[in-house]
Amino acid sequence: METAIISHKDRGLRSVLLDLETKILFIGWFPGWSKDIAEPSTTLVGTGFDAGTNHLEYEFYEHLAIHKIIEKTVNAEREGLDGVVIGCFYDPGLREARELVEIPVVGVCEASLHVASMLSAGKYSVLVGRRKWIPKMADNAKIYGFDSKIASWRVLDLTVPEMKDEEKTQAAILREARGAVEEDMAECVVLGCTGMAGQAMRAQEELGVPVLDPVLMGVKVAEMRAALWKRYGISQSKIGGYEPPPADELGPIYKKAYGKK
Amino acid sequence: METAIISHKDRGLRSVLLDLETKILFIGWFPGWSKDIAEPSTTLVGTGFDAGTNHLEYEFYEHLAIHKIIEKTVNAEREGLDGVVIGCFYDPGLREARELVEIPVVGVCEASLHVASMLSAGKYSVLVGRRKWIPKMADNAKIYGFDSKIASWRVLDLTVPEMKDEEKTQAAILREARGAVEEDMAECVVLGCTGMAGQAMRAQEELGVPVLDPVLMGVKVAEMRAALWKRYGISQSKIGGYEPPPADELGPIYKKAYGKK
Amino acid sequence: METAIISHKDRGLRSVLLDLETKILFIGWFPGWSKDIAEPSTTLVGTGFDAGTNHLEYEFYEHLAIHKIIEKTVNAEREGLDGVVIGCFYDPGLREARELVEIPVVGVCEASLHVASMLSAGKYSVLVGRRKWIPKMADNAKIYGFDSKIASWRVLDLTVPEMKDEEKTQAAILREARGAVEEDMAECVVLGCTGMAGQAMRAQEELGVPVLDPVLMGVKVAEMRAALWKRYGISQSKIGGYEPPPADELGPIYKKAYGKK
Amino acid sequence: METAIISHKDRGLRSVLLDLETKILFIGWFPGWSKDIAEPSTTLVGTGFDAGTNHLEYEFYEHLAIHKIIEKTVNAEREGLDGVVIGCFYDPGLREARELVEIPVVGVCEASLHVASMLSAGKYSVLVGRRKWIPKMADNAKIYGFDSKIASWRVLDLTVPEMKDEEKTQAAILREARGAVEEDMAECVVLGCTGMAGQAMRAQEELGVPVLDPVLMGVKVAEMRAALWKRYGISQSKIGGYEPPPADELGPIYKKAYGKK
Amino acid sequence: METAIISHKDRGLRSVLLDLETKILFIGWFPGWSKDIAEPSTTLVGTGFDAGTNHLEYEFYEHLAIHKIIEKTVNAEREGLDGVVIGCFYDPGLREARELVEIPVVGVCEASLHVASMLSAGKYSVLVGRRKWIPKMADNAKIYGFDSKIASWRVLDLTVPEMKDEEKTQAAILREARGAVEEDMAECVVLGCTGMAGQAMRAQEELGVPVLDPVLMGVKVAEMRAALWKRYGISQSKIGGYEPPPADELGPIYKKAYGKK
Amino acid sequence: METAIISHKDRGLRSVLLDLETKILFIGWFPGWSKDIAEPSTTLVGTGFDAGTNHLEYEFYEHLAIHKIIEKTVNAEREGLDGVVIGCFYDPGLREARELVEIPVVGVCEASLHVASMLSAGKYSVLVGRRKWIPKMADNAKIYGFDSKIASWRVLDLTVPEMKDEEKTQAAILREARGAVEEDMAECVVLGCTGMAGQAMRAQEELGVPVLDPVLMGVKVAEMRAALWKRYGISQSKIGGYEPPPADELGPIYKKAYGKK
Repeated sequence: METAIISHKDRGLRSVLLDLETKILFIGWFPGWSKDIAEPSTTLVGTGFDAGTNHLEYEFYEHLAIHKIIEKTVNAEREGLDGVVIGCFYDPGLREARELVEIPVVGVCEASLHVASMLSAGKYSVLVGRRKWIPKMADNAKIYGFDSKIASWRVLDLTVPEMKDEEKTQAAILREARGAVEEDMAECVVLGCTGMAGQAMRAQEELGVPVLDPVLMGVKVAEMRAALWKRYGISQSKIGGYEPPPADELGPIYKKAYGKK
Repeated sequence: METAIISHKDRGLRSVLLDLETKILFIGWFPGWSKDIAEPSTTLVGTGFDAGTNHLEYEFYEHLAIHKIIEKTVNAEREGLDGVVIGCFYDPGLREARELVEIPVVGVCEASLHVASMLSAGKYSVLVGRRKWIPKMADNAKIYGFDSKIASWRVLDLTVPEMKDEEKTQAAILREARGAVEEDMAECVVLGCTGMAGQAMRAQEELGVPVLDPVLMGVKVAEMRAALWKRYGISQSKIGGYEPPPADELGPIYKKAYGKK
Repeated sequence: METAIISHKDRGLRSVLLDLETKILFIGWFPGWSKDIAEPSTTLVGTGFDAGTNHLEYEFYEHLAIHKIIEKTVNAEREGLDGVVIGCFYDPGLREARELVEIPVVGVCEASLHVASMLSAGKYSVLVGRRKWIPKMADNAKIYGFDSKIASWRVLDLTVPEMKDEEKTQAAILREARGAVEEDMAECVVLGCTGMAGQAMRAQEELGVPVLDPVLMGVKVAEMRAALWKRYGISQSKIGGYEPPPADELGPIYKKAYGKK
Repeated sequence: METAIISHKDRGLRSVLLDLETKILFIGWFPGWSKDIAEPSTTLVGTGFDAGTNHLEYEFYEHLAIHKIIEKTVNAEREGLDGVVIGCFYDPGLREARELVEIPVVGVCEASLHVASMLSAGKYSVLVGRRKWIPKMADNAKIYGFDSKIASWRVLDLTVPEMKDEEKTQAAILREARGAVEEDMAECVVLGCTGMAGQAMRAQEELGVPVLDPVLMGVKVAEMRAALWKRYGISQSKIGGYEPPPADELGPIYKKAYGKK
Repeated sequence: METAIISHKDRGLRSVLLDLETKILFIGWFPGWSKDIAEPSTTLVGTGFDAGTNHLEYEFYEHLAIHKIIEKTVNAEREGLDGVVIGCFYDPGLREARELVEIPVVGVCEASLHVASMLSAGKYSVLVGRRKWIPKMADNAKIYGFDSKIASWRVLDLTVPEMKDEEKTQAAILREARGAVEEDMAECVVLGCTGMAGQAMRAQEELGVPVLDPVLMGVKVAEMRAALWKRYGISQSKIGGYEPPPADELGPIYKKAYGKK
Repeated sequence: METAIISHKDRGLRSVLLDLETKILFIGWFPGWSKDIAEPSTTLVGTGFDAGTNHLEYEFYEHLAIHKIIEKTVNAEREGLDGVVIGCFYDPGLREARELVEIPVVGVCEASLHVASMLSAGKYSVLVGRRKWIPKMADNAKIYGFDSKIASWRVLDLTVPEMKDEEKTQAAILREARGAVEEDMAECVVLGCTGMAGQAMRAQEELGVPVLDPVLMGVKVAEMRAALWKRYGISQSKIGGYEPPPADELGPIYKKAYGKK
């Protein structure tokens, strides 16, 4: 893979010779085909949540997952990776991870809603597995700025484990996505769970509106952010809400929590 | 440049062999170094507004520019380009262009605010040249969903032509960016005019918060959208607000306006 | 027509002898009966959009119309008229026109939503021809401040040309207006297209709630603003978003665009 | 004064022969010059609040005033008047009065904020006498839809009785209006008390932005609404929040409260 | 009833010996069982509205009630009571009463919405008797901060007098509450009228979500506020919107209105 | 302590004989005097966060605290307690805890903002130790519904450990609270950290506006909710966002996390 001189040199800035390969960690349910969605210059590495649960539908399970998400993100930075995708539509641990590292950290819900907002003149809908999920996700959407962009939250009535039945899931996606487009005037549909990953293309072809796969959205946004980070040093601000603890205070606390510094 | 098999094949979707090179048109003030900011697989082509004005600070001038933006965007699609960036922070012609083409169309303001929102736990500020610009840009920010994310709009008291004085502009950027960070609690600063392009890095190094160059943001978001478009057919929805006129109705009208079909 | 001394004289202000006749330009589809809706002291002059299209349902067509709206508005001011109504519910060119002239410029959507807001304790609905129109109009409503006042946007499923069939249009209006009142709790209904002009009275009598004709609303608000302008010099602020370009810069640009200064 | 045939006759509606003279009641502090602000076809009648207080700065005093506002409004309708203006910037009794009558009822705050919103591309400021007033007025502004349009509420530090000192009041208006324009980026200034009536013109000439007199705004909006009412039967909706009590229930209650039916 | 030493004494604050018994006035429809809902240390005293109407469904009737609510609240403070509950879901007189006294004044709507917000991760619905009520109550909900928490306003189609038929009312509550939970995704239901008081428990047992009785909510919040007031001097702020008139100005006005100082 | 018959018996509901004593767990920094703020019928039990940190200023530390908060809350329910207060102004673990138990769970921030909203006609300010804290707390305030009620977030420039210096902290509180009242028009001030507990009374006496202690607010709201829970079975809704995991699924996961079922 080639390197390139990225510079603002006609503005008197320093020229830098950069390696343009990026390596991104995807934490979560990582289907085999996911590697294929990365750009040629990206190496996408997958790892599970290791939360001891087979889904994260509940706040408590999310809490357990966050513990590992933090550790995996910190390790990713230490090992020189260029970005992390948190692969659950609740965006668990997004704040915690961004606080502790400088490399880009992306949540699949945040990424999906940003893209959907750019694709829709009006509103879009989000499909979730169960009603249970909506309040937390809707609060996140509000915090991200998108509450007025969401036409509806629609429920598949499927748990995450049930989503392994791909045909059943596709049928539910089609049913609710069609309702969103026809009844709620959605212009775009977001699949609100990585358990639905891989199902977007079929629905998009059937419905004729963009249907967004959260895994794909997370990876594409992470690639963009990794490029901004590697070449321009642009990542989440460390002044304000993502300010990290002082290193000397953090060290022993982190060590106690994870058994190593 | 290599090609890749992008597929959801384990989900039974068709495999497609794709050319991963993308070609993106940047309409607007296009500094020489801009080409360097594209990814290796991207060819970035620059073209001016050709509006007969040397800036777009006024609604009327924007209107004149939109006429060309529409034509250039339509031509870009016809010539097989993969995306268009509209290089003025008012995002002129964004709706019109998205209505008429399927290829991704990106506005630099929209792109910058999306990225800034992902970098900030709290709020960010936008620096503009003159107070005149704020109401329209603030309305756009509201439409995009980001009014509650903006800590302040700050004024450099410089016209676009005056921004050619880079030292003066850098000094004004530093003055207002520092005020934004210290007084308005901004965590990130957006340069709200392509006339400030190329100035972000110096300010970022000085201030220690992300400072976003609108040209860079527009190009990076366009690259992401071009990838989604080329490989997955994902672009602005054509159902709803971006629905195009019927071809047979549009044809003669377009021809009359631009002298060719 | 009489003249009157309008003064704040007991407050020490100058007395002025004024001609109270006002002359207002209506740009757009101008039915014959429209002249009858003006106050006796108003002369209402109609002119078409001359955009080369027979409707403005698309952003691109709006763009073409704006070119003429700007010119007609500037001419109206030069010829001594006292106000301009832009007769399309997208309010095309409202910002551009207000930027270039001092005389009042009124959009029929803006005018209708202001009046509807004053007539409703709760919410009101807007009837549009096609779903396509809603995102842009809803964004305008949001900018004007009225997103929380709108009970629903309802679709007649009629194009503007189809609205020439008055009976069919009236039937569609009644159907959707009744739905708005009964299902969406609308207290008032706005006809969201000048193509529906002249249809309000029948629906209002049938339904027992105010049904607002956008042509009538535009004219009445323009008359009010013309009175404020002629007698008190009150019109859109020229400091801020409606600040015009400097005359010497504007002159040649305008001339190039319209063939005369 | 002439009469006119107002009709939608080419749409098959009934022709009606109307008397175009309107008579409007202004309740509140009514300076002598106020009559001069009415259109030639309007007769403006003034009456006081008769609340037993010499200002309405407190909620309790407003309550006392509302009792009379209701009665005066009901009487105005019975006597054949065509509209009522409630002349206090708290808009006291607006809901109550609108509930009981069909003729247009206008509040000076509501009217002023609507006009200011149409004059400003960005935001405007409201000047009040004392900080005490702001929360209630700001809640009203929020209900009307204008909270995002208000750049600032600024305090003159003058009670209503102190506003009788016109020079002192003008000086305070100039001081705060200038601050609003220069520091808060207001494009327009609203005088938020009828005690400041008559002071707008001087400030407007001094500052070069629209300065709105609440008495003038109330009267102009009332004239517009009176025209819509007399000729088209358009007034506040009686379905929903302004639905009146059943006549037979209301009769004895009203009689008990006011000593006559 | 015992007394207790309430102190922040380890912070050097004065110790105070307090009587912990509180006495609260409930103004409105006060069913016999209401006394049982008070805490053992609370004496709850009931009094009617004495407005000369048998319900407050209309703004005008509310106005009449407010006159008495003010007087009764002032008397309550003079007689040494520790708090007042205004027992109508319109919260009539809340601002006026809070302006004139220092003891806590609680509205049953405000109290109910605060509690419902604490019980719901997502949204809740409010059941009202008639559509007429919604605009005013929705405006109050918006002012209190809760417009984004309300899933729906649902209508029983019962007047307040009709609510005396308890079985009919319970059936209507069940019907609409079930619709709210199943169709509108409400997590909690608020009974939006004291005419429905006493009906919450049955519906809650039937539906399995919290169903809030406005009388109970008003009393519990008043008890909490009375405790804060008696022991810590915390009540509505007297700086700002609840600032009272100067005593010497208020005295004669109050006397004239109520026949005594 | 006495018992009472709480019933809606005249509505035909069952009578229940209840023990009115409540026992509430306070998790967090629990100063000695805190016990004195409980009502006589409440037993308030304190326990620390046991997070291995001496403050929770960072997201990561909060995460560590949440692990214990969950366990302590679950234990509290098992041991028959009637409510839990989470004693950190970030409200860490509020969702997780509410998901897993039925007994009332109260966050001190949520409680404080609810009370402040009831005390203020206008807005109130929140004092925090460091700027770092604001984005997360402001997001919480937005979710709770109170973003439009907050006049300002003001920074003491003190870490939590530094707040042990009571005089220094009091001085900073007075400085910022005075600024909030005088410059930001706050009507009430909330101490936004339990590290400031015990400092409210002095500031309130000095400033003459309500100053709210978060520990006190948390306890009072918890007492109210405990009363609603014990007597009426009213607590956070278990349908929707607080729905718990199925018991058989939760059991082994919980056991693995905490070493016991």
